[in-house]
Amino acid sequence: MHRVRAWTRAAAGPLTAWSRTRTRSLSTGTRLDLSGIYPPIATPFTAREEVDYRKLEENLQKYAEIPFRGLVVQGSNGEYPYLSDQERVEVVKAVRRSLPKEKLLMAGSGCESTRATIQLTERMAAAGADAALVVTPCFYKGKMDSRALIQHFTVVADSSPVPVVLYSVPANTGLELPLDAVTQLAQHPNIRGVKDSGGDITRIGLIVHKTQAQDFQVLAGSAGFLMAAYCVGAVGGVCALANVLGQELCELERLCVSGRWEEARDLQQRLIEPNAAVTRKLGVPALKQAMEWFGFHGGACRSPLQPLTDAETQQLRRDFSSNGWL
Amino acid sequence: MHRVRAWTRAAAGPLTAWSRTRTRSLSTGTRLDLSGIYPPIATPFTAREEVDYRKLEENLQKYAEIPFRGLVVQGSNGEYPYLSDQERVEVVKAVRRSLPKEKLLMAGSGCESTRATIQLTERMAAAGADAALVVTPCFYKGKMDSRALIQHFTVVADSSPVPVVLYSVPANTGLELPLDAVTQLAQHPNIRGVKDSGGDITRIGLIVHKTQAQDFQVLAGSAGFLMAAYCVGAVGGVCALANVLGQELCELERLCVSGRWEEARDLQQRLIEPNAAVTRKLGVPALKQAMEWFGFHGGACRSPLQPLTDAETQQLRRDFSSNGWL
Amino acid sequence: MHRVRAWTRAAAGPLTAWSRTRTRSLSTGTRLDLSGIYPPIATPFTAREEVDYRKLEENLQKYAEIPFRGLVVQGSNGEYPYLSDQERVEVVKAVRRSLPKEKLLMAGSGCESTRATIQLTERMAAAGADAALVVTPCFYKGKMDSRALIQHFTVVADSSPVPVVLYSVPANTGLELPLDAVTQLAQHPNIRGVKDSGGDITRIGLIVHKTQAQDFQVLAGSAGFLMAAYCVGAVGGVCALANVLGQELCELERLCVSGRWEEARDLQQRLIEPNAAVTRKLGVPALKQAMEWFGFHGGACRSPLQPLTDAETQQLRRDFSSNGWL
Amino acid sequence: MHRVRAWTRAAAGPLTAWSRTRTRSLSTGTRLDLSGIYPPIATPFTAREEVDYRKLEENLQKYAEIPFRGLVVQGSNGEYPYLSDQERVEVVKAVRRSLPKEKLLMAGSGCESTRATIQLTERMAAAGADAALVVTPCFYKGKMDSRALIQHFTVVADSSPVPVVLYSVPANTGLELPLDAVTQLAQHPNIRGVKDSGGDITRIGLIVHKTQAQDFQVLAGSAGFLMAAYCVGAVGGVCALANVLGQELCELERLCVSGRWEEARDLQQRLIEPNAAVTRKLGVPALKQAMEWFGFHGGACRSPLQPLTDAETQQLRRDFSSNGWL
Repeated sequence: MHRVRAWTRAAAGPLTAWSRTRTRSLSTGTRLDLSGIYPPIATPFTAREEVDYRKLEENLQKYAEIPFRGLVVQGSNGEYPYLSDQERVEVVKAVRRSLPKEKLLMAGSGCESTRATIQLTERMAAAGADAALVVTPCFYKGKMDSRALIQHFTVVADSSPVPVVLYSVPANTGLELPLDAVTQLAQHPNIRGVKDSGGDITRIGLIVHKTQAQDFQVLAGSAGFLMAAYCVGAVGGVCALANVLGQELCELERLCVSGRWEEARDLQQRLIEPNAAVTRKLGVPALKQAMEWFGFHGGACRSPLQPLTDAETQQLRRDFSSNGWL
Repeated sequence: MHRVRAWTRAAAGPLTAWSRTRTRSLSTGTRLDLSGIYPPIATPFTAREEVDYRKLEENLQKYAEIPFRGLVVQGSNGEYPYLSDQERVEVVKAVRRSLPKEKLLMAGSGCESTRATIQLTERMAAAGADAALVVTPCFYKGKMDSRALIQHFTVVADSSPVPVVLYSVPANTGLELPLDAVTQLAQHPNIRGVKDSGGDITRIGLIVHKTQAQDFQVLAGSAGFLMAAYCVGAVGGVCALANVLGQELCELERLCVSGRWEEARDLQQRLIEPNAAVTRKLGVPALKQAMEWFGFHGGACRSPLQPLTDAETQQLRRDFSSNGWL
Repeated sequence: MHRVRAWTRAAAGPLTAWSRTRTRSLSTGTRLDLSGIYPPIATPFTAREEVDYRKLEENLQKYAEIPFRGLVVQGSNGEYPYLSDQERVEVVKAVRRSLPKEKLLMAGSGCESTRATIQLTERMAAAGADAALVVTPCFYKGKMDSRALIQHFTVVADSSPVPVVLYSVPANTGLELPLDAVTQLAQHPNIRGVKDSGGDITRIGLIVHKTQAQDFQVLAGSAGFLMAAYCVGAVGGVCALANVLGQELCELERLCVSGRWEEARDLQQRLIEPNAAVTRKLGVPALKQAMEWFGFHGGACRSPLQPLTDAETQQLRRDFSSNGWL
Repeated sequence: MHRVRAWTRAAAGPLTAWSRTRTRSLSTGTRLDLSGIYPPIATPFTAREEVDYRKLEENLQKYAEIPFRGLVVQGSNGEYPYLSDQERVEVVKAVRRSLPKEKLLMAGSGCESTRATIQLTERMAAAGADAALVVTPCFYKGKMDSRALIQHFTVVADSSPVPVVLYSVPANTGLELPLDAVTQLAQHPNIRGVKDSGGDITRIGLIVHKTQAQDFQVLAGSAGFLMAAYCVGAVGGVCALANVLGQELCELERLCVSGRWEEARDLQQRLIEPNAAVTRKLGVPALKQAMEWFGFHGGACRSPLQPLTDAETQQLRRDFSSNGWL
């Protein structure tokens, strides 16, 4: 049987003081179990590009039937850079109203500046987020070395009312959170994990290895390497494809966690091409198109994201159908 | 004598209709002469990281003595990603109050979404900007192809009350505005130029070549290749180093425009290392440190940008002193 | 128990005709079982940078005690680009003389031109190689698209007297053999596998998936992702680190193949940093230094590869000692 | 008038001793004037991919009518990685027989290992080369730092019977010769220049600036930035396009050297697209196709370089015709 890592939902002892700059007590002294599958939910829009809360609600009702660990709101697939801060918070509030208490709501609260990130993290917590997913700032990428990033995440985590999960997504940011920054930040009592979307499995294994003494968990950031990530010690995944094939990804989780690796491999391999299609190859417009095919509301993206061309739509369909999903 | 390109400040004839989606008349039917040197001004902060309007004002008074064509406000060196929209607009208003009418105020108004860019561009125009500098959206860089970018800039330019200047800065965005997008957008009557910070002189020459029939001008985005850019047909530069050595860059402009290339070369070459130090190598914190040395207010950056280390400060000093500037 | 993929060492049926251009019968109609661990052996040199055949022989005697599937001769770690063609062949002959018959000798025979690759492959076969490891040509990388590479490998495989294994090593070549080229080439009866050193586990899984109907096997090209590669269906690894910690890598293989994933994970994770040190971080000079520490002959590299600095040697030592190997 | 840099063909004083490891006297104590235009000649092949010396000879006769400074033999466009060492030397001999004495023959002699480069350089000198063009070794690119490259080029230059020109071509090698290596190597009395094909005009200007005290010259490695390179202090160019439009490139040289920058600009800009087509975009097969259109022998490339597709041929034609060359 597969040994589950020692993360449990049981309360742990009180935290020792960690940082002099910390000005408020953390909300919890308990461990936060991140293990499981999360869809980073898409944001449906009306024809006029306004957030469509009704369609969002209907998606959430369908997701409620899938054994997700929780939802990520305002991840990259939620088009968060295209939402105003106000919209970002409103969407989190709307999700919180629908989401059962035992489901974890992880809200993306990263901004370019430290001060804006602190403020938005507080608003997300007030809106009902259980954890904050904080992406690396990236505009001044030449200056975002370990020193700057450790400082940024430390100050944010010091002040955050909810646990923080680091978020490294080089395909969008052009920046990978350096390994030494991850391992140092893992020692912060309010930083509980990392979502790694880069897909470098050697790095993921090394992060698990070098943080094993901490209360720190690793989530795969894409379905393409989910099984391999479980294999080297990750505890779950935040996967765009879970918006479309959520049940299947939860099944893949179950197979990995129970050590049924051959079955897992067969399933994993059929998910690689559909996953690539809705992420790296064709992006959020493809994710939303595929959602429509599978009974969810996807719809259009905000501009400048463009609708798929006909050729792209056909490619997308092929990537699902050739693997038996359509 | 060096032939100045045909851009003049004289009025041109009325614009013909260009786009059906354009809903308002453009502010001017005149040509906009962009030629000359612009500092992309830094934003001074107080010790608490608030915008320091007094120090900003003092910098502006010093810049007034330098024959700049105008100022760029909210370029990359202005730390605009760390300012709120409200702050971005307030800074433009403050600059407008100080800036003589004949100086051109170019305000950065680019956001990730088209709708936010439209709104901020309008606010910048209302705040007194003469032109809007619009950076490429970049978060979903895999989807920001020519189709998406042409659509984005077209819609923004259609609705902008002031002329638009394209802004390509791959070191920060991880994305270069494709050549074919530039040449197509150059045909838009409200898109008047491009600031190219990539530094690929072959590309800059080709942009000049392929847009020569349009009312479109090219600005070098960095002092390191300013002379070469003039040589292949650019009309000016938006140069971080102009915050520090503005008089010298205006002198370099004068030498290039009057065809005194040997003198220009000697001056240009002494500017390469100082320029690299305050941009690519050490970034905005170095720019602000160098400003202090040369009698301007630089000060600290907003977090997560970190102060220079001692070793970096020494390196910065060497890059100025070894070229005879300190 | 872990299901071993269906590759067996038993003979399979006769091959069907595949290519009209094939001018000689393949040496075998049998399946070639590639599964297992291979060190890509280093080439020891004398103080005058000549190949030191005595030291090579002594290394081979030590390797004979380790349950490797075989050896790779003239892989990247063999400094093959620094050997003349004559030396490349001589080293293979020397290895063949020492190597027991049941051990597989895979010889690197890739050159930039197709014609040179054909010739060297034939010489390698004549020198006793059981299989040829053929790297992607890369100098004209802008033109090395799937069309060119499929043509190249097809012609080489058509004429090769021994089975061909594709070799993709982007860290050295700046080029990844495209997935569609791999899947098409996998249909060639004389192309039996790929050594993938890129480490993209999603891609490795997809290669396994899309070639499962063929007589085609995937070897991990580095120890850092060996376990993950087994997890997604690879059958072995060609690992620089096997020159140093060969017994341990064979143990890792045994644990993976027998489904003892938790033990495998503990071992795998202790191997990541030593592996990175002798490959990506510090390269062949570090590999050879580490060989000395573990009782093998490493010695110096040919120039322009430089000896490690003291700081690098200390870093190397730390990467082994902090994981309990020194 | 444009000031020509102080490089003259007049003899200079005797060289001072430079390196203790230097074991032979340099062939000349005279300055070597590199200034001017060089085609890096293509290698014609027969239908069976053998070197076609008759066609080569005919090309040379046509080139004799163009005021080139000399020829580069075995540059990237000569497909040197596809020639055996013997062929590389034979082609140089054949060119030397045809080439008037006053024309400079620069022969590519770079190999991956230092020892092979030393040997081939000596053979090239014996075959009649006036100078050796030595490319950066690149296979172990992670280890090819300034330390390794300075050591490599120093040892090669120490032993070379003819002056050495450094060659940096990152599009092929994935490696740029670092600036600090260039400036240090420029102090070697037998290293007289650099061919820089990267096209970073800021870097080219800085190389000129930091080597102005040395007997060291900079050649642009591509026609796309030739004028800009002249502008910042380069003395000539080794340009693939000179195989096709040699007369025009010599005219561009003349305009730049005589300070007729506006005329130069018009000509330069019409050359950018044809140049890109025969280099970066479509490579050597396109260069050879264009040579056919302009009365030279181009023919096929050695495999794995593939002939142009029909679509590529049309694109190539468009890039010439839209600029008025066809």
